[in-house]
Amino acid sequence: MIQDAYTALRQGEMVLLYDFDDRERETDFAIRSDMITSRDICLMRNDAGGLICTAIPFMAAKKLGLPFARDVLRNCAMVEQLGDIPYDPSNNSSFSLWVNHRDTFTGITDRDRAKTVTALSVAVESVLKGETYSFKDQFRTPGHMPVLIAAEHLLSQRHGQTELSVAMAEMSGIIPSITICEMLDDESGYALSKEDAMRYARSHGLAFIEGSEVLDRWEKTSYPATDCPSPKGAVHRI
Amino acid sequence: MIQDAYTALRQGEMVLLYDFDDRERETDFAIRSDMITSRDICLMRNDAGGLICTAIPFMAAKKLGLPFARDVLRNCAMVEQLGDIPYDPSNNSSFSLWVNHRDTFTGITDRDRAKTVTALSVAVESVLKGETYSFKDQFRTPGHMPVLIAAEHLLSQRHGQTELSVAMAEMSGIIPSITICEMLDDESGYALSKEDAMRYARSHGLAFIEGSEVLDRWEKTSYPATDCPSPKGAVHRI
Repeated sequence: MIQDAYTALRQGEMVLLYDFDDRERETDFAIRSDMITSRDICLMRNDAGGLICTAIPFMAAKKLGLPFARDVLRNCAMVEQLGDIPYDPSNNSSFSLWVNHRDTFTGITDRDRAKTVTALSVAVESVLKGETYSFKDQFRTPGHMPVLIAAEHLLSQRHGQTELSVAMAEMSGIIPSITICEMLDDESGYALSKEDAMRYARSHGLAFIEGSEVLDRWEKTSYPATDCPSPKGAVHRI
Repeated sequence: MIQDAYTALRQGEMVLLYDFDDRERETDFAIRSDMITSRDICLMRNDAGGLICTAIPFMAAKKLGLPFARDVLRNCAMVEQLGDIPYDPSNNSSFSLWVNHRDTFTGITDRDRAKTVTALSVAVESVLKGETYSFKDQFRTPGHMPVLIAAEHLLSQRHGQTELSVAMAEMSGIIPSITICEMLDDESGYALSKEDAMRYARSHGLAFIEGSEVLDRWEKTSYPATDCPSPKGAVHRI
């Protein structure tokens, strides 16, 4: 099953990524950022409906000078504190800044968001290769595409769609920049149920993968513990 | 025509608000924030497709302690500068912070966004009445609902959907907090054309209003010049 998801991800197809029954209980559309098109953005907003965000690895963000939003906003009285996130009180949210590529017009159209997203993957690839990249020359903030930064110790530290999708990208051997969007339910007003998301995947011929499968595969690889020791020793999920 | 829009806005119906042919050339769904429901958020994401944002007046933001994002991010190298916005180089974007009401779960579902939006209208109403309101006790940042702050001198200073919608709310006599979302075109990848937006309005029995009509009415009232002298004397639109 996870091999199907890897194959789909490598081919630039949409993958449906569910997190965990004891976390958000949410399925996200997930697609590699470097192959995204305006048609994909259109599909995400029409068939998923959540916030279209781009997840990148911690190291790439660090090299690009992209901070966590909570760090930039640390002097705001209402800034998120540890414990504020109801589904994951041991961690913070992944939000970095909201950006537009400088060549966009409003920044919100399908074409503009696709441009920003593909440019983000170029930025990530460049700095991970050790190349010099001037983020400010290509992007400005505030904008319409939220960037999400994966936890430094990835799935050893946090089990969000941000970490799951970056881990999948790394294990698939593609540029670790994945664009995701939550599937919402038109009827209930809540997130789309796992059953309905699986039904959508079947009817559209898309891969559906659960966080537990990604985590299991990730724990069996050399990624955790050796390269990325968790600072806490264990992940706490509610 | 503008009376129809006022009536619709007062009744909590969706109004279609086009800006100007020489600006974004974009039509936004616009609805009063205090009457928004999860069904309205669902309609906005399905039939408009852009970023669902809440516009509030400058004075309300000031009293709530909500800054412009560009001010919070002023030390970031890539922060937006005057001239960066291609459709309005004489002004900056309206982005304030992205917030979630503290009683939300993920913050992105239709129910969660409706809760955040209606709570924002309570916050705006409270401070504009002169009441004490602790924003940090009700909201946290970063979150999933972008707040937009109208220019201090409203339509004397800037002609965005933020100012147009807040001006409409003020002239309609309702709480000046309007939630807006850009209408996007599935086919072209650009914003929905004015003609298609007008067609949608007709087929769905909704009011369609142009920025020029709002501006004309606003200039004929006592709002501009006397109460809100523009610091520049004139508005520059490309």
